[in-house]
Amino acid sequence: MIDLNGILERYRPTEKQNAELIGAADEVISGAEKKIKELGLDASAILVGSVAKGTNLASGDLDIFIVFSKEYSNREMEKFGLQIGHELIPDGREKYAEHPYVSGYLHGRKIDIVPCFRISPNTKIISSVDRTPLHTEYVLNNLDERGRDQVRLLKLFMKATGVYGSEVRTAGFSGYVCELLVIHYGSMMEVLMAFSRSKGQFSIGFDAADTSGFTAPVVITDPTDLKRNAAAAISLENLSRMKICSKLFLQDPHERFFAVDRTYEPTEYRGRGLASRVFSLERPDIIDDILYSQANRFRNIIVQILDEDGFMPISSEVELSDRIEVFVECKTGKLPGTRVHTGPPVDAANALDFVRKWSEKKLDTGPYVCGNRLCVDVPVRDRDLDLTVRERLNGFIIGKNIDNLKKDMEISDPSQDGRKYLVIGKFYSRSLP
Amino acid sequence: MIDLNGILERYRPTEKQNAELIGAADEVISGAEKKIKELGLDASAILVGSVAKGTNLASGDLDIFIVFSKEYSNREMEKFGLQIGHELIPDGREKYAEHPYVSGYLHGRKIDIVPCFRISPNTKIISSVDRTPLHTEYVLNNLDERGRDQVRLLKLFMKATGVYGSEVRTAGFSGYVCELLVIHYGSMMEVLMAFSRSKGQFSIGFDAADTSGFTAPVVITDPTDLKRNAAAAISLENLSRMKICSKLFLQDPHERFFAVDRTYEPTEYRGRGLASRVFSLERPDIIDDILYSQANRFRNIIVQILDEDGFMPISSEVELSDRIEVFVECKTGKLPGTRVHTGPPVDAANALDFVRKWSEKKLDTGPYVCGNRLCVDVPVRDRDLDLTVRERLNGFIIGKNIDNLKKDMEISDPSQDGRKYLVIGKFYSRSLP
Repeated sequence: MIDLNGILERYRPTEKQNAELIGAADEVISGAEKKIKELGLDASAILVGSVAKGTNLASGDLDIFIVFSKEYSNREMEKFGLQIGHELIPDGREKYAEHPYVSGYLHGRKIDIVPCFRISPNTKIISSVDRTPLHTEYVLNNLDERGRDQVRLLKLFMKATGVYGSEVRTAGFSGYVCELLVIHYGSMMEVLMAFSRSKGQFSIGFDAADTSGFTAPVVITDPTDLKRNAAAAISLENLSRMKICSKLFLQDPHERFFAVDRTYEPTEYRGRGLASRVFSLERPDIIDDILYSQANRFRNIIVQILDEDGFMPISSEVELSDRIEVFVECKTGKLPGTRVHTGPPVDAANALDFVRKWSEKKLDTGPYVCGNRLCVDVPVRDRDLDLTVRERLNGFIIGKNIDNLKKDMEISDPSQDGRKYLVIGKFYSRSLP
Repeated sequence: MIDLNGILERYRPTEKQNAELIGAADEVISGAEKKIKELGLDASAILVGSVAKGTNLASGDLDIFIVFSKEYSNREMEKFGLQIGHELIPDGREKYAEHPYVSGYLHGRKIDIVPCFRISPNTKIISSVDRTPLHTEYVLNNLDERGRDQVRLLKLFMKATGVYGSEVRTAGFSGYVCELLVIHYGSMMEVLMAFSRSKGQFSIGFDAADTSGFTAPVVITDPTDLKRNAAAAISLENLSRMKICSKLFLQDPHERFFAVDRTYEPTEYRGRGLASRVFSLERPDIIDDILYSQANRFRNIIVQILDEDGFMPISSEVELSDRIEVFVECKTGKLPGTRVHTGPPVDAANALDFVRKWSEKKLDTGPYVCGNRLCVDVPVRDRDLDLTVRERLNGFIIGKNIDNLKKDMEISDPSQDGRKYLVIGKFYSRSLP
């Protein structure tokens, strides 16, 4: 039998580590409370996130929220929040989620200081960040020591199988969703059994909340706001992966399902007779969620172009290193010099112009009629994958942060230098454990 | 201005030719009447078709119908009909439309002798052949000398532009449809103007008949049976071709639109950088309409296979010579050695079996998850167009007359020997005049 306790020992923070974490958090919180008093604000500083909830792994970061009275305007809240953050983390950087916040390092430990409004359960909120303190309170009230360890095991399983993380990039299971799953089912094993048995949409209605109105792949109503789906960010692919990995583990429990140290690294690309390319762009300095969503759109547009133009893409992946990297594999990298050009319907006012224009060119065949439209076979220069993407990309708007970088796009064949690209490592990590 | 009279003179039968045709018809009809009397039948022989209606071109054949009383059974009608046919055309062959009939040559002139039942206008008929005598009568009553010449011009235009002919193979405009068009519009030029101006479905409701229930591209209610669409066989492509050719002619009237001698002949195939093939089969000895419909299905199945398997077909054509010939052009004739194999949904009972089976094979990547399904990239031998069609064709049923010929299918590259294949000539004939 697999030694779950042994795994837990390896990744759970020791008492000493936890004492240090709490000490560091207390230090920041007292500093923040002092600043609040100085500024005469109706606000308080609290520890949230996995450390506050006791579900953190040894590698945990600190999340400290400055909770403001709803009397303040959005602008005041953000202004005072950033001011306090900057004073507490001298070399912190401003980042942006739903509100701007300050992120940086203190004594080598990552700390975020985030402003938000104070709200009560099931009330209309101003931003979803404001709900975070309620989550902390709910988890503390509903998980005991044993349950918290079960959450740690579930997080390890999800990290190792590649479905953990709530960012746009990962579209996976968040820490809070892991906590709700253990609160509902009692243990990691029960959670895996539930996933292994489920078919189609996976849903849990906390406090008998109605889940029927939600269409997301996973629905877990938030017990602090029963109209909200706490699992809305999870993709169908990650739900599917969680189901099949649960089945695989239950059938043959093995430590590899907890090997969170398994990261993808620069890897050789093993050519498979396909036309493969890495398209890469300079990485603009914007927050990750926006960057990832634009990078993903960049990938989707490249795949769309290759598909429409007949290069038959069969795989693609996107990753961020110091550049935006998009990897594609196509069945062919060259297409022949004849293309069917579909003209107007014969009923259209410009039908005769089309016939006249193309008849003058004295082509081998055509113009001719297909269905109700005019067509002609146009000789074109033999088409090449790289040129096609470069030319057609100009016709697409990807996003303001990427569009002006397109002209410097680099294209390379990973069969030559696959190790240079993080996206190749990520591509191979899609295999099931 | 174009000399329509000159064109007419060239193709209209002379008085002498017509006298000979009528003489030949009379000879056959008296022979038939004599047989009818000998056998004591309630039947009569009549001349139908374009000669009877006075709309024939110089090359006209003779169609003689033996019209039986409805007192007879189908079987009796057919038996006596064939008996009379064989006696009048000693070396005639039996063919089959809706009833069997005898077809052959007398004094070098092609003659069909077809049995049918006697019916009145707008009555329920037993077979559509039975309506032919009514068509003859209607046209004789509604077209004068000038109108008959207009029909001849319209037929010449339609032959030259490739839209004439009511067989399954051509799916074009029949002689009767040409006659109805001239009766309705008054002249060939008026007919062309109507087509050049029309958009979408082309419809004429004779005697104010309701055309709204018909969905065919062309609807012309039959004045001898207002519930029937006399133009039901015309394809969308032929309607479109008629529209655009009418526009082209009216804009720039030229004799080439009446060049019925323009036939397609063995032609060199001018390669266009595409992977091109002629697939050919022995020609079974069955009637043309059935043969063409099976040959067409053979062509459609080949195109479907090539499309599904990623060879990207862009053109195809089918023709009958002493063999069935199917021509295709594809963007590629070879595909690389990796194929995405889509497995069961992760929810399926056999999902784990799929993962186990493919994990054992130690592939470069996978199994992985796409959406809600398991996938794996399978190495396959490089795929070749010819082999793919040969292998997959066995999985299709084309028709009983063709299926046992598939095993002897020949495949060749028309870039090498295009002149051997009639289908290459037909392919080039699709260009607009």
